[in-house]
Amino acid sequence: MYQVYGDQLSGNCYKVKLLLHLLDIGYQWHHIDILAGESEKDTFLDMNPNGKVPVLKIREGEYLWESNAILNYLAYNTRFLPSNPLAQARVLQWQFFEQYSHEPYIAVARFINKYLGLPKEREAEYLARQQGGHKALAIMEQRLQHSSFLVNQSFSIADISLYAYTHVAHEGGFNLATYPAIQAWIDTISTLPGYVSMTDQA
Amino acid sequence: MYQVYGDQLSGNCYKVKLLLHLLDIGYQWHHIDILAGESEKDTFLDMNPNGKVPVLKIREGEYLWESNAILNYLAYNTRFLPSNPLAQARVLQWQFFEQYSHEPYIAVARFINKYLGLPKEREAEYLARQQGGHKALAIMEQRLQHSSFLVNQSFSIADISLYAYTHVAHEGGFNLATYPAIQAWIDTISTLPGYVSMTDQA
Repeated sequence: MYQVYGDQLSGNCYKVKLLLHLLDIGYQWHHIDILAGESEKDTFLDMNPNGKVPVLKIREGEYLWESNAILNYLAYNTRFLPSNPLAQARVLQWQFFEQYSHEPYIAVARFINKYLGLPKEREAEYLARQQGGHKALAIMEQRLQHSSFLVNQSFSIADISLYAYTHVAHEGGFNLATYPAIQAWIDTISTLPGYVSMTDQA
Repeated sequence: MYQVYGDQLSGNCYKVKLLLHLLDIGYQWHHIDILAGESEKDTFLDMNPNGKVPVLKIREGEYLWESNAILNYLAYNTRFLPSNPLAQARVLQWQFFEQYSHEPYIAVARFINKYLGLPKEREAEYLARQQGGHKALAIMEQRLQHSSFLVNQSFSIADISLYAYTHVAHEGGFNLATYPAIQAWIDTISTLPGYVSMTDQA
């Protein structure tokens, strides 16, 4: 059985939990308290030298890290990863977009606001993240106005990757009211069979 | 024939050029001058709404963006992408590591130093990038001390992704003298058949 090392407050960890539930794959969840520094302890660094959650334990001594790499591994040969090479590359395109142009703005703004309580000394940084976040949301909105899902009109792990922090973007100060296609896409995903919410016990 | 839209000063674009040469695939290179704002023009945004190079034109109206997604597409079914699902996921693990934990430090420090001439107002940001860059290099060094290449002792697109900005890290102020395994890995890659340097004409 897979062992997942993660923190419930992290959207990156939620991606893995959501896919495991949608695929109905059993797993054990090990809570890593990132605010308490548990991802920087030696026992954790032995699994991922980069000190980041989530980590998937595949077997003794074999650990996979980076949320989107884990999604690709778990989705291999399932309905959530297209088999066509170009469609697979498009899934990756959106996942790399997520990690470079979406997560650093939306997830970080959410972290500063929700978990650090928007301290005065990080207010400027928080505000600076808003612009990049809205740029990412506008690109998603443009795509979702023409397609029910990000790749080939079919739900895939690309949608999971971007859903994770988009559906809680309001916690980072992003008002989704002006993004109707994103809102419809969020509603659709939340009714998929097997869906589990971010705060449901893993 | 593939059309590549890129800028020679970008390591992300170099990844694509290097792989095309190693695979001996013909292509046409279209220069996009990012310092002159050409990646923000409407004609470019029609190809990639995110305004980033490189972009691969596959056929009329079909454009793929995100350097690492392009690498996976071009390397599909070649010797540079392992067919084993876990090994494929490990390639992705290192590519996502590159985009989140390596490029934002090493490539950005290089850009500030080499292309902007380290202006006074960005000096603090430049210095702040050094710590994250050295953390990424230390993780690579640890891996390469135990393996000739990043995944399964065999050269793959994971190596291309990390080679692109690592081999010019000194241009961002990173001294590689304390990373002997990285230096040996750089030397090995630069002698691969078909190798092309970053500054060679595309």
